[in-house]
Amino acid sequence: MVRVYADNAATTKMSRKAIDAMKPYFEEVYGNPSSLYSIGQEAARAVLVARETMARQLNCEAREITFTSGGSESNNQAIISAALIGEKKGKKHIVSSAIEHHAVLSTLKRLEKQGFEVTLLGVDESGIVSPGDVAAAIREDTCLVTLMFANNEIGTIQPVSELGAICRARDLLFHTDAVQAAGHLEIDVKELNIDLLSLSAHKFHGPKGIGALYARKGVELVSIIEGGAQERGKRAGTENVPAIVGMAAAFEEACEHIHENSKKVSALRDSLIDGLSRMSGSVLNGERERRLPGNVSFCFEGVDGEALILLLDKKGICASSGSACSSGSLEPSHVLLAIGRPPELAHGSLRLSLGRYNTEEEVDYILKVVPELVSYLRGFSPVWNA
Amino acid sequence: MVRVYADNAATTKMSRKAIDAMKPYFEEVYGNPSSLYSIGQEAARAVLVARETMARQLNCEAREITFTSGGSESNNQAIISAALIGEKKGKKHIVSSAIEHHAVLSTLKRLEKQGFEVTLLGVDESGIVSPGDVAAAIREDTCLVTLMFANNEIGTIQPVSELGAICRARDLLFHTDAVQAAGHLEIDVKELNIDLLSLSAHKFHGPKGIGALYARKGVELVSIIEGGAQERGKRAGTENVPAIVGMAAAFEEACEHIHENSKKVSALRDSLIDGLSRMSGSVLNGERERRLPGNVSFCFEGVDGEALILLLDKKGICASSGSACSSGSLEPSHVLLAIGRPPELAHGSLRLSLGRYNTEEEVDYILKVVPELVSYLRGFSPVWNA
Repeated sequence: MVRVYADNAATTKMSRKAIDAMKPYFEEVYGNPSSLYSIGQEAARAVLVARETMARQLNCEAREITFTSGGSESNNQAIISAALIGEKKGKKHIVSSAIEHHAVLSTLKRLEKQGFEVTLLGVDESGIVSPGDVAAAIREDTCLVTLMFANNEIGTIQPVSELGAICRARDLLFHTDAVQAAGHLEIDVKELNIDLLSLSAHKFHGPKGIGALYARKGVELVSIIEGGAQERGKRAGTENVPAIVGMAAAFEEACEHIHENSKKVSALRDSLIDGLSRMSGSVLNGERERRLPGNVSFCFEGVDGEALILLLDKKGICASSGSACSSGSLEPSHVLLAIGRPPELAHGSLRLSLGRYNTEEEVDYILKVVPELVSYLRGFSPVWNA
Repeated sequence: MVRVYADNAATTKMSRKAIDAMKPYFEEVYGNPSSLYSIGQEAARAVLVARETMARQLNCEAREITFTSGGSESNNQAIISAALIGEKKGKKHIVSSAIEHHAVLSTLKRLEKQGFEVTLLGVDESGIVSPGDVAAAIREDTCLVTLMFANNEIGTIQPVSELGAICRARDLLFHTDAVQAAGHLEIDVKELNIDLLSLSAHKFHGPKGIGALYARKGVELVSIIEGGAQERGKRAGTENVPAIVGMAAAFEEACEHIHENSKKVSALRDSLIDGLSRMSGSVLNGERERRLPGNVSFCFEGVDGEALILLLDKKGICASSGSACSSGSLEPSHVLLAIGRPPELAHGSLRLSLGRYNTEEEVDYILKVVPELVSYLRGFSPVWNA
């Protein structure tokens, strides 16, 4: 049976290199890195090397990297930490956008209950936050700007460099949720003036259950999981050594081949976008240019997105209608609404997210199957047939 | 070179069964469980089966199990959740003990800053919390009793059944940190009247970076990591499928052989305790009977514990002076102080924690090496030679 995995924004197949890197830490070098004896210290060294690897690829120092259980935890910790730093200075206003991931939006909602004020900026039709809007939203009491690097549903890449510069000029903390970008787009935290950055290993062919949080030296993180003094007191709990090592291997692999992967995956993406754009009643979501290499997002008139996903599955194609995290929800995607899609059109969304393991043949197959299924589904649509 | 791993309370070597259980989920069934297509749903089923396995071994329902990133996160979430339930009823007093793990003590300290009152009960010389003391400490405004199942440093098992009964009779939430007990002692949460229970996979030959929190139906958990609706909204973040599956495999394996393992490991433990007790200036920490099968904890007069650990390492023996989480700290163990060891004696502590992979030959080797090294170190001790 054919299987075309085109949901790499939800999660990825682990790379061989990452799996092989993890293996020795399950039953050979299984010591607790806090232990004094050799196999503990060997595990501690592996964690240090992994930290240095992550730091090198992001252009920061190893001690600016904290390992977490994933992107959601990193986002929670980054925002809560920045909020507490702000609160100490009497600054309780945060600027963000309407298209952030739920890990950001939910954390902001929690902070609102604690007396913080949050300005959620709108985006243009391609999902871009305007730097001018950000500058205008900043107030005397703003403590944090948190804007994602690239969107998980529609793939739009934000003007991070300009956003970072605006925040640095105003001496404001800038956090970016780079879960979709890390390993796929070049990220230099210094050059981009990023103070806090979240990433997740399973989005770049690393293991699930592990992430990292970059916090610029001097930006004090508060622990959201308390206990032992691991991660310099910033994150309690025995270090997940195999996963940390696997993440670093996957990140290094992804970053070292970032240009060739980007070129290859973008070409596949563009074929898909070109092909699907030719269908009647199809609308591309997001920007054509400032777009993640692997992201293809469309809305189809007269189609129920979930039905399409299920039929695609029967043809061996793994895709999603929006983000994996909100699947099962009957609400239309907040991202698609924010870029101005009417709810009924937003319900007909399809996200195909490609990765370096995808092939031209797979793209051809998708381009054969999707139009067939869309036509089939439209046969049931009273609106489409009216 | 000989290697005797005797620090199973810090972490354990993964079992073959657990590793093999994880494997398919790295690069075959790697789908996101929130996805609708087959490899996502297959991953979701694996998570469900794992949840049922955990529940069956604890005698609860699958939906009473929430997967977390480990024991520390479980402890944080359990206590914060219970505190919030209490706060809503105007109850802001918590009963705990002086010998809890830092993940519990630190969370309680945070709650104190938020206006909660915490009574930390003392323990007797063997480290046992008296049920009478617990009953006496409970007030009108008590919302939670949190007491560990068994201590990580000295191995003492608390009278959990009596503690649970006391709390249930007073309609009070009872949380137990069972990180050291799970997989080593039989736990029936219903019979023991436990409302909240924390466990960690890497303490019973499962993977690092994964744990579980049992919360009795009706005990509402608050999410400490917010975002997606995973774990019924109680814990955001893509499920760590391989680790969840590996934990369940390891837990089932441990529970199915719990009696034979306990018998074997206790016999090794008793040989060690007997042998080390015969040394002059040695004091056993903890109870002889109500003790974790694998725990051996001694204080040696005139010896520096850390020096002993380092010399043991040179002989291929992996051991610790107390908990792994506080190693590197110059403070004497809060547990040893609580059972009345004077600071200078507490500094001479040695914890050997055995597991099912240890052998009689290893115990004989430890019994040969430890007395030699203790004598050697005492040669440098002005106190011992005075």
